[in-house]
This record gives sequence, C-alpha cells and structure tokens, in this order.
Amino acid sequence: MPDAEESAHGPSRRAVLGVGAAAAGAAVVAGTTGFAVGRATAAESLTLNAYEFRGDHQSGIVTPQQDRLHFAAFDLTTTSRDDVIALLKDWTEAAERLMAGSELGDGAVGGAYQAPPDDTGEALGLPPSGLTITFGFGPTLFSKDGVDRFGLAARRPDQLADLPHFAGDMLDEAFVGGDLCIQACADDPQVAVHAIRNLSRIAFGTASIRWAQLGFGRTSSTTTAQVTPRNLMGFKDGTRNLRAEQSAEIDKFVWAEGGDGQSWIAGGSYLVARRIRIRVEVWDRTSLQEQEASIGRTKGSGAPLSGGNEFTEPDFSRAGGNGDPLIPVDSHVALAHPDQNDGQQMLRRGYNFTDGADHLGRLNAGLFFLAYVRDPRTQFVPVQEQLSKSDLLTLEYLQTTGSALFAVPAGIGPGEYVGQALFS
Amino acid sequence: MPDAEESAHGPSRRAVLGVGAAAAGAAVVAGTTGFAVGRATAAESLTLNAYEFRGDHQSGIVTPQQDRLHFAAFDLTTTSRDDVIALLKDWTEAAERLMAGSELGDGAVGGAYQAPPDDTGEALGLPPSGLTITFGFGPTLFSKDGVDRFGLAARRPDQLADLPHFAGDMLDEAFVGGDLCIQACADDPQVAVHAIRNLSRIAFGTASIRWAQLGFGRTSSTTTAQVTPRNLMGFKDGTRNLRAEQSAEIDKFVWAEGGDGQSWIAGGSYLVARRIRIRVEVWDRTSLQEQEASIGRTKGSGAPLSGGNEFTEPDFSRAGGNGDPLIPVDSHVALAHPDQNDGQQMLRRGYNFTDGADHLGRLNAGLFFLAYVRDPRTQFVPVQEQLSKSDLLTLEYLQTTGSALFAVPAGIGPGEYVGQALFS
Repeated sequence: MPDAEESAHGPSRRAVLGVGAAAAGAAVVAGTTGFAVGRATAAESLTLNAYEFRGDHQSGIVTPQQDRLHFAAFDLTTTSRDDVIALLKDWTEAAERLMAGSELGDGAVGGAYQAPPDDTGEALGLPPSGLTITFGFGPTLFSKDGVDRFGLAARRPDQLADLPHFAGDMLDEAFVGGDLCIQACADDPQVAVHAIRNLSRIAFGTASIRWAQLGFGRTSSTTTAQVTPRNLMGFKDGTRNLRAEQSAEIDKFVWAEGGDGQSWIAGGSYLVARRIRIRVEVWDRTSLQEQEASIGRTKGSGAPLSGGNEFTEPDFSRAGGNGDPLIPVDSHVALAHPDQNDGQQMLRRGYNFTDGADHLGRLNAGLFFLAYVRDPRTQFVPVQEQLSKSDLLTLEYLQTTGSALFAVPAGIGPGEYVGQALFS
Repeated sequence: MPDAEESAHGPSRRAVLGVGAAAAGAAVVAGTTGFAVGRATAAESLTLNAYEFRGDHQSGIVTPQQDRLHFAAFDLTTTSRDDVIALLKDWTEAAERLMAGSELGDGAVGGAYQAPPDDTGEALGLPPSGLTITFGFGPTLFSKDGVDRFGLAARRPDQLADLPHFAGDMLDEAFVGGDLCIQACADDPQVAVHAIRNLSRIAFGTASIRWAQLGFGRTSSTTTAQVTPRNLMGFKDGTRNLRAEQSAEIDKFVWAEGGDGQSWIAGGSYLVARRIRIRVEVWDRTSLQEQEASIGRTKGSGAPLSGGNEFTEPDFSRAGGNGDPLIPVDSHVALAHPDQNDGQQMLRRGYNFTDGADHLGRLNAGLFFLAYVRDPRTQFVPVQEQLSKSDLLTLEYLQTTGSALFAVPAGIGPGEYVGQALFS
C-alpha cells in the first residue's frame, strides 16, 4: 500500500465525512449530530437527522415518517435458539451503529486488510439520513408447521394470530410471511438499502431474506407537521392517520399490552404488511367522477365529498340533490372510517412502490401498506374484511399480492438486545 | 358535487401547491420557479429546481445529475409514421409541462368530470424536483427485422451500430433494446415515476413499455460541484467523469456531429444503457485488499493505489516493494483509463439499483450504467471489449443482464417537437 493511502484505512464514517466536506469545498453543520458534511446540493445536506435506537419503543413507528423504505422479511435457516439470540445481539449492535451513521465493525476501510470489510461501504460519506431500523417477529418464529423450533410456542401472543384469507387476495408466495422482519426507513434510499444489505450479511448462516420491498414515497404522515402525501392513485393518503402527537390515541391503538402472560410484548406493537398492486392502467382510464366516488374524497384537495377541506370530518349523512349520500356508502372513506369500524384506528406507515414493468408493459406499481396496531384481530382484520367485500376501490382497482404479520417487540435499554424479553 | 369542492376542480398544479402550503402552515419560496410550496421538512423543500425542456441540447445529459431515475424503453405498436410523429409531439408538450411542475392537459383535477383525468395526480403538490426528461431513438426505430417501418432506414447514423456481444454478457431479453427510450431524472423519485407513467399513458395505442428500470442513487457526477457518490460495491464511482464545466471535452466526447448526411443528429448524443448486476454476496466476502486491487483505488478515499487523493492522476508506472505496479494492470481503473483507451472519455450518468431479492434471498442489485458519447463505436465498444476480457472486476463480480443503445436527438427550439429534424 502506498503511504498516501494509509489514512484511508482507519477513519470512522465521521472522519470520512470530513474528507467529503473538504472535497466539496462546502460544509453544513448538522444540528442533531454535530458533524460537518459537504454535499453538492442543499437538498442532500438536510438528511442529517439521527434517531436513537434504544428507548421505550422501537424507532420507526411514531418517528416522523421518512421518505424511503427498504423492508425485508427473513427466514431463519437455523434451528438453534442460541443462534437466534446471537443474531439479535449482532443486529442490535449493528442497528445502533447504522442509525448513528457510523460504520459497522472496525469499519469498511478500517478492518483487516486481508479480510472482507465489516461494512459494505456504500453509505460512507452519507449522513444518518433519519434512518430507523425496526425489528419484528413473525408467527412462524413461534411455531412453524407445528414445530416449536426455538422453544417459543408458549410465548406467542393471541394477537399474533395468522391473518385470515381476505376476499380478492391474490397472494404471491414470494411476498408472504417471514420468521423475522426488518423495516428500514430513511430519507436517502441508499442509506436504507445499505442497512438491509448489511443486516442481511450479518445474518448469513442464520437467516436469509425471504422477500424484500423498496418503497420510494411515503403514503401517510405520522406527525402533524408532515403534509399528507399522495399515493399512486393520485389521491392524498393518510389524512386521518394517527399522529405521534396524539399520545392518548397512540397508547390506545398502537402500543401492545402484555396481557395473558405475554409481558414481553408490552410496549411493542403489531405490524401488518400488505403489498397491494394497483391496476394502474384501469384506474387511469376511470373518470374523475368515479375515482372520487371510489375514494369518497376529491382528488385535488382531498376533502370529503360531503364538503369542506382535507381535514373536515366526513358527513356520511349529507345527501346530494338526488337524495343519495354525497359520500357513497361503498366508498373507501366510508367503509374504512372509524365510525363504521367500532372506532378502531391504525397507525399507517405505507409507501408507494414501482417495481419496473411487467411483461405486458404495465407498471408493476402500488402501495406497500404498513400499519402498526395494538391488536390486529380487532383493528385490522374486521376493517379489511369489510373492505375486501364491499369497497369499490378494493374490488375494482386493487390486488393484494403480499401479506405478512409481525409482533414488534418494545424498545430496549442500555446493554439489552432487541427482543430480549421474549428470550428470557 | 358539493359546492365546497368546486374549487378543487380547476386549479393548476401551482394552485394546488398553494393549498399544500396553507395546510403545512409554512411556505418556502423557490428561487427558480417563483411559487410557494409548503412541505413538512426542509429537505423536501429543496427540490425546487426547474429546468428548461427546450434548448440547444436535451436536458438530462450535462444537467447536474439528479439523485433518482426512472428509465423506460418503449416498443412502437404502430406502423404509421404519422402516429410516431404525433406521439413525439404529444410527448414534447407533456415533457415541457412535467419539467415545469405543471399538470398535464386540463389538469388532474381540472378536466371533464366524466372523463379520466389528464394527469394521474401523484405529483400534485410536489415541486419540479429538478426533473429532466430525455428522449432517445433505438436502432429498431430505423429498421427492425429488415423492415423500414417508418421510412427512416436511410437516416440511421453509422454511429448507431448495434452493440456487439461482449464476453460475459448474460443478457435477459426483458432488459434489451427498445425503439424509443425516456430517461426521467429527478431529485424526488415520485416525480420521476409520475413522468414515466404519464408519458407511457400518452403513448397508449402507439407505444408500450418494453422494459423499465428505477435507480435510487447516482453513481457519477456531471458537474464539478457534485461530490463523487458511491456505487453498491462501496467505492466512489465517477471520480474521473467528464463534467459540464469541461466544455471543450463535452464538445469533443459528448455532442454528436451531423456527418455522413445525418445532420439531424448534430447537437445530439448517443446513450449506452447497460444493466449490470453485482454479485453482491461474492463481493461482500472478498477481502479489502482484493476489492481495492480489483478497482485500483482505495475504498476509503477513492485515491488511486499509486497514492495521493481521490483526484490525483493514477501513476500506472509506480511500483511497490515487490516491483509490481501499485495499480494492478488488470484493475478496473487501469483498463478503463483514457490513457489505456486512446484518450477516449464518456459522460457517465449511471444509477444504483436494487430490485428486491431473488428467489435465493440474494439482493438483486447493481449498477444501471448510462453513458453519453459522441460515437459509441470508438468511445464505448473498445473500452467495454477490453473490460469484458481482462477486467478482474467485470469477470469476477459483475454480470451484465441488460443492454441498449439510443440516438439522442438534439434539443429543440420554440414550436418544435423532439426529434423533428429526423422526420423532416
């Protein structure tokens, strides 16, 4: 190695960032993390948020929803409980470093020269970008094909009941289930991809990716400061989503209790993941009137068809000139509204996706629905059963191709590993 | 329709943006476009650049490389020359509006209520985000299977010769060729996806998507102000790329001449698109030493192994203690360097991609190589032939699965449509 290169083999990601700053001839000081980063455009310099991995709850649930997603479901390839624990310990350590924007291990460029780098390196020089990493446990972790591989069968909460088949589901086994899951959200997709790649690499020999999904645009907001985004049907999505600031509702609808002896899940949540393909070409040939009638809101402002603005409460009783309700009874808004669902709410955290084009030249695009709930049996299943049978939108324009459910353990304190309460 | 909603059916995207601003309770004034946009985070407010569609050259070539890509290749489904011209006119009008951040047609929410909206709507409320739309013509536009469908066979430039088969190519027909292509680059992927979707929709009945690729992280810089990004091998990529500021080199290596009677291509360029999958898992198990020897640069700083910093010229003659060159002769840098290639250079504009995981749980990830050249026969083909036979990196870790070549016509003036010179 030439002398001049020596310095490249030791620095932390922070140090490498310094190099970047010098190269760019410009530095921006990050408020939350305190290090300097040089980036070509101002847009790139504003992804400096770093969140804490440890806390009462896992990050990535009520955290302000980032713009990009890489989600992966894993199958365990081991039958050893100790292997699983070791993996969760390794993942915990890695997640903490990744979220801080640090390199893994001795660093991508700081490890032994004769060994593979500990970090794959593509996030070197990138700020933390608001990365959150959220871990979940699928039903098959507890029992798979009737086999209790890891001595966890008795620890499965009732809430983690397998999702029923919903009318119209056209599930592709390539997007169903998983023993474990990782949700990586960030404001830079390269940072999210880097996280999943390196966590997958750490799992080598213990778990492998079963399926994965990238999302490029959020379809809900988790804080009141966020503007409601649009889904690929072109409508605002998530207007009525729960927000982090609604602490009473978050406690009531999101955080799991530890009843029935399953104290390990207290402070955690349940994550429903559904890959919903939109029949884009059909939708795009539908009149504005029918689109709005299917949703129950206007396309422009997102206001309910009963009037007002985006945040006006829908008035399901208000009738138009012909005596019919202005918001059709089979519209998505009507059927999904808490008033029609025993007051139930969910914390949604979905993303738009486009996975290229299919062999017919149609965009393979849709909504990767993610929702955190306290109990899927009462909050997700009844609503989805109603939608799958009656919802104009679901029946005509959507096709659910993937589905999975995970128990998301609570956050952890210093020295603990994610999911430790389940294994102790 | 309730009265309150009337106002939602007329506004331009600009007007809708105003609604967004009010909802967010914050407004940021864009320097380049002059309208106010409300967005939740500062990062989101900094994608306000709007570029001009018309000009001497098409945008999206020397434009500062945006962070996100949606690329689509199209097959013409018509045999009518007039249909092709009509499509190019429609695409021109739409591209100009899309790049300005305006809605298409009468607007997503401003068209006839009984008709499908002119715009699919998912970019409503989003700023222009630096969108550029670049059109190209594949060899099959001029002649396909020996048939001159559009009376263009005699207008095919010699430079648009079919690419030869390169050693090691493992092409998937799903990612090869195309009569037409559109490269949409933006700093917000939703804006790029919206552009391709709507242009594809406009083409219905005339052309359909043959294949498409999303890219999430640029792998080169096209201006000196941009920091060199990293590819998914974790190395800086594009250190020696041509930059817009090098006007003499851009003239020499990028803009096509109109010789041999093909004056229509003067001021245009040729685009080489190659979908290169990285054998991620193999690469990740390779020692740092071998990784750096394969590239010829250090992973940390990106400096050549002969010493210095990222931008130091490689010294291919400098030997290490054992007498061997510090930069291996079969490294990527050595084989791709202009000194080894008759001084040839390319303007690269590639992107990282990750298309989920394959059925073995391996990341389906790599580099979507895009390069603009004055003559592919002298600038791309010889370099790639050398790499495909001798380059350690290419031989061991890369697998080219897609390939296409396009003639990119020059920019257009007021009243013209893209490619008009070819058809007149």
